[in-house]
Amino acid sequence: MTARLHEAALADLAARALAGLGLDPRDAADAARILVLGELMGLSTHGIGRIESYGERLDLGGIKARPAIRVDKVAAAIAKVDGDNGVGPLVGMRALQAAMELARETGVGIVFARASNHFGPVAPYSLLAAEAGFASIIGSNASTTIAPWGGRDARLGNSPVGFCVPNPGGQPILLDMALSVVARAKIRNAAKRGEAIPPTWATDKDGKPTTDPKAALDGFLLPIGGHKGYGLALIVDLFAGLLSGAAFLTHVSSWSENPEAPSDLGHFFLLIDTARLGPPEWLAARMQDFLAILHSTPPADPAAPVLAPGEIELDKLERHRRDGIALDPALIASLEALAARASART
Amino acid sequence: MTARLHEAALADLAARALAGLGLDPRDAADAARILVLGELMGLSTHGIGRIESYGERLDLGGIKARPAIRVDKVAAAIAKVDGDNGVGPLVGMRALQAAMELARETGVGIVFARASNHFGPVAPYSLLAAEAGFASIIGSNASTTIAPWGGRDARLGNSPVGFCVPNPGGQPILLDMALSVVARAKIRNAAKRGEAIPPTWATDKDGKPTTDPKAALDGFLLPIGGHKGYGLALIVDLFAGLLSGAAFLTHVSSWSENPEAPSDLGHFFLLIDTARLGPPEWLAARMQDFLAILHSTPPADPAAPVLAPGEIELDKLERHRRDGIALDPALIASLEALAARASART
Repeated sequence: MTARLHEAALADLAARALAGLGLDPRDAADAARILVLGELMGLSTHGIGRIESYGERLDLGGIKARPAIRVDKVAAAIAKVDGDNGVGPLVGMRALQAAMELARETGVGIVFARASNHFGPVAPYSLLAAEAGFASIIGSNASTTIAPWGGRDARLGNSPVGFCVPNPGGQPILLDMALSVVARAKIRNAAKRGEAIPPTWATDKDGKPTTDPKAALDGFLLPIGGHKGYGLALIVDLFAGLLSGAAFLTHVSSWSENPEAPSDLGHFFLLIDTARLGPPEWLAARMQDFLAILHSTPPADPAAPVLAPGEIELDKLERHRRDGIALDPALIASLEALAARASART
Repeated sequence: MTARLHEAALADLAARALAGLGLDPRDAADAARILVLGELMGLSTHGIGRIESYGERLDLGGIKARPAIRVDKVAAAIAKVDGDNGVGPLVGMRALQAAMELARETGVGIVFARASNHFGPVAPYSLLAAEAGFASIIGSNASTTIAPWGGRDARLGNSPVGFCVPNPGGQPILLDMALSVVARAKIRNAAKRGEAIPPTWATDKDGKPTTDPKAALDGFLLPIGGHKGYGLALIVDLFAGLLSGAAFLTHVSSWSENPEAPSDLGHFFLLIDTARLGPPEWLAARMQDFLAILHSTPPADPAAPVLAPGEIELDKLERHRRDGIALDPALIASLEALAARASART
């Protein structure tokens, strides 16, 4: 049995659950927006289910429910955000809002956030920026799961990064990815099924490529394109962690191993106001042409037409906005239980 | 037999050769700077040898020797450059200089260039930016060699992109790459030697992965990480081509097939002034820590220590600056012959 919820009801439930965990109701609504959009885009590993795990750390004092988030403008087009160890999507929303303000003024804005936590999926931030006319590059660092190329010790996070260009005439092009070939969950699933994995997915604990999912779980994720993906993951950490003043590489505290310790994660939000480059009709015509060239490519497999990045997620979002989204009743019940804490408190 | 030249002599020779091709001597010196730095970094496929091929197109009228390059500031932090079909590294240097000016004012600057040509390697631009204290993301589009993921027609260039963070205490971290698993030249070399290639390098003309280098040369380069590298190559073209007002995807005219036609390539130069984030000592200490964590990683192969992106190229640059660089005398002779045209003209 599943329950079907529409976006407004889901946003209300997620916000009440976060408020139940102690967040200011306005902050809770902002943070909920990211997780609800992620859920509606089909990114359920980074959707409203995260509220429960954020809640565990809030309860342990590993995250502050009522942070004093500070935004310092350090140049006409740059701000630094101190997240004061708040919930990640809340710090992320404040940083996104600050980047929008800067980019509206000067055409470009970059915000570096530190003292933050897991900020949810990247795609919702990219989408909110695109809906306001901004092209964007957005990234976060993460705790270590990847060995440097040629190394045999996890010293680098599988940092997510998103790139997006808005389309005033339709869907934006939105690439949201991490730099590993696959997520760890895919290796866990292969291990459960007792299946071999391709040698390109991961190494064993000695840094040698392996087809044994169990050896891979003791080892490290492999980045896409070998030294290229390794380099890209480093760059995301340099922008999100090093330049922001946050922790980086092995300094990022692991959420699962040290739930009470602040993670001091860092993010960056770079926005470009496309309205400064040409009128919306100009951009819409060029995006339509660009997408038409991709979509008309003869496919290698006639049953699988060529897609643009983000198309699957944005189609899901549209469908879920129209029809509502089917959710596990147990998840809804657990969020309602968190929400009930707020009423208990007053 | 090889000739050994020092940087100053090489820069002088390259500038004279470009002036011999009709460039204004000041423009020639600027364009030469990029190709000479590329040569000294060991990027010889994108080094001074390019002057001969640029020359063929200049002689055919496919590139203008004396372009009227225009810089239009469209926002406090954004400028658009019209390269007027000038030599790529000249348009690139003008765009880089404009981006530096913007970033010095507002902390961030982005310049979109159109009506340009092959702009040489990315790394020299990144290095010049880093030496002036700017972190950077720089990219260009290119004529089509990659099929969209799941497609069987080349509709996407193997666009180069560079990311760099300066280090006031030593070498910057500099990632300069294209999004294919390997360059086409590597497949040509395998074909010459009659060797099979890994199935991850390229597809045949039907878009199916192949181990036959000859079939691969009739087919398409594969991007790193499948749909991820495809997405990244698209993003570089969206920023460099679509947002800049240049040609994009299949609209980019092929240099080898249509040498007389303007390529209308596009580039973007995004610079961030790191001095706004903290004093040089702060950045130097963080970069030293970051690099130490990478370098101290136990290597999978004890003979191959873990490196940071750009380390090999920046070490070569240092060595060549100290000892000079050994060059093929035939290349030097051909550049001298181009240079002699200038004196013939006066």
